[in-house]
Amino acid sequence: MSPQLRSYLELVSANDNFSYDFQSQSTYYTFHLPHDDLPHGYMHPLVVSKMPWTPSFLVDHQTRTVTLRALANDDMSRACNSALQDLIDVIIEKNTFEVLAGRHSEMYRVPGAVCPVSIERFAAPLFGTIGRGAHLTAYTHTPDGMKIWVPRRSANLKTYPGMLDSTVAGGVRADENPFSTIVHEADEEASLSEVVVRRDVKATGVLTYMHSTDHSFFAEKDLVIPDMLYVYDLELATNMVPIPKDDEVKEFYLMDIEEVEKALRSGEFKVNSAVVMIDFFIRHGIVTEENEQDYEEICMRMHRRLPFPMSKTR
Amino acid sequence: MSPQLRSYLELVSANDNFSYDFQSQSTYYTFHLPHDDLPHGYMHPLVVSKMPWTPSFLVDHQTRTVTLRALANDDMSRACNSALQDLIDVIIEKNTFEVLAGRHSEMYRVPGAVCPVSIERFAAPLFGTIGRGAHLTAYTHTPDGMKIWVPRRSANLKTYPGMLDSTVAGGVRADENPFSTIVHEADEEASLSEVVVRRDVKATGVLTYMHSTDHSFFAEKDLVIPDMLYVYDLELATNMVPIPKDDEVKEFYLMDIEEVEKALRSGEFKVNSAVVMIDFFIRHGIVTEENEQDYEEICMRMHRRLPFPMSKTR
Repeated sequence: MSPQLRSYLELVSANDNFSYDFQSQSTYYTFHLPHDDLPHGYMHPLVVSKMPWTPSFLVDHQTRTVTLRALANDDMSRACNSALQDLIDVIIEKNTFEVLAGRHSEMYRVPGAVCPVSIERFAAPLFGTIGRGAHLTAYTHTPDGMKIWVPRRSANLKTYPGMLDSTVAGGVRADENPFSTIVHEADEEASLSEVVVRRDVKATGVLTYMHSTDHSFFAEKDLVIPDMLYVYDLELATNMVPIPKDDEVKEFYLMDIEEVEKALRSGEFKVNSAVVMIDFFIRHGIVTEENEQDYEEICMRMHRRLPFPMSKTR
Repeated sequence: MSPQLRSYLELVSANDNFSYDFQSQSTYYTFHLPHDDLPHGYMHPLVVSKMPWTPSFLVDHQTRTVTLRALANDDMSRACNSALQDLIDVIIEKNTFEVLAGRHSEMYRVPGAVCPVSIERFAAPLFGTIGRGAHLTAYTHTPDGMKIWVPRRSANLKTYPGMLDSTVAGGVRADENPFSTIVHEADEEASLSEVVVRRDVKATGVLTYMHSTDHSFFAEKDLVIPDMLYVYDLELATNMVPIPKDDEVKEFYLMDIEEVEKALRSGEFKVNSAVVMIDFFIRHGIVTEENEQDYEEICMRMHRRLPFPMSKTR
């Protein structure tokens, strides 16, 4: 951990670190689904060349495209899902890419696909398809001002071990929506009752960014992770205390704003959870135009326009 | 007013209606300040050709740039301001452009300029420089749920007469910051006391968009208006009632969420105030991933990355 303090814009930029430059972007291959002219991901050229492609995929080095093929009379969803799964099975068997860590993972939906298509969570960064996460910030009003419940991640997690995080967070599985993710993760990670969560949690927006894996990532570099984070607030009564349940959280701290700010600036938060906290600070009038010189830039950068479709109704 | 109901994404797109396509954008000239390699605005070719340029400006049709010139030993701010003002004086005298309506207007700061530069509000769309506005949404909790204070604009206003608006809104003058704009506009437009406003108003973010004037605009078409709207919330006690003071507001209505939604969808709101209201709905968990199919797209589109610098500390 560097002793140098980071600005909020530096924290946001470290998360949204994929180039905005068209030239740099065009070194990537675009990933396409059948009968769909919009791309669904960016693939690094090294991934394309190393991938154990099956005949279900057409790789065109001229147009720098990878297209999943399906016959017009196929059940499109089934054809796509099984082509992707067959390929991922080979990757895992051959241990082609470190990012899969040699094992299967939960199924994620590819947003904006014309028919439902799912892909294993750990494999999504190889294709550069949009991932979806849900983050909840729980806070409470005390006589000493607002305080926030901040967990420390377990030391044995593969990603960001021991770092600070959003109160509750999880990836959105293909079979659920962001709010149901919050409901079950709040129980699993923080022992927060479903009744309280369903009654008091407030949806507050979506943050979007494009992350590019770098030296701090445990596996391949320069993979593209476009992400949508659904953010939620939960005001808890002062006598309600989140308690770790599964093995993802080591412990919860009740921090005041100054402590959270200090931890953010010292780089103690997981990269995307830092951005969720900065968004919370902005929505709650803690970070303002008057006290933050990069206020406008931060607001824009937390809502990056992703170059892939995402509508539910294409 | 069309009887057809608009979706929230349609309302957001009507406001952020400048093309995202690089080719369309490149028909515009970029506007430059001296000793600054980043552009500060997009100028329509017809505006460039019709403008009564003075020798302080260099128009280059090859690079499609307009550059304000200043000698290295000039007082930069003063040189820029007087060159712009001399030009605007000529425009008003000759009545070259309808958008100025033949009269002077308040001074606006050009954001992100390396030295402070100001331009008259009505002239900014000719140069396509970023404008700044501040919008406040006042609401109250009643036994029947949340209600919002919605004003109707006076019928004699030049822009959007008779339409619904944010509770309080105004452009940010060069000599003030967004919060001070809210403080004095809340008094002038709604008779809300400075003490209450300073105590209870909460800053909640910045919305960014690029508007291109179209047939509904009273003056030139295809002018580019990149805008930053600083948004604020104010929860009022049920016995506090905003009352029109200056001649900009005809009357205030206390609307429930359903009434506001209906007015939005019928196109009764001023174009950018509709977006402020949709942002309010998203931050307050009224519009969510579960009830709005374009949720993600709306969140991104309300925070467009503007292609011009905006930092206070360049």
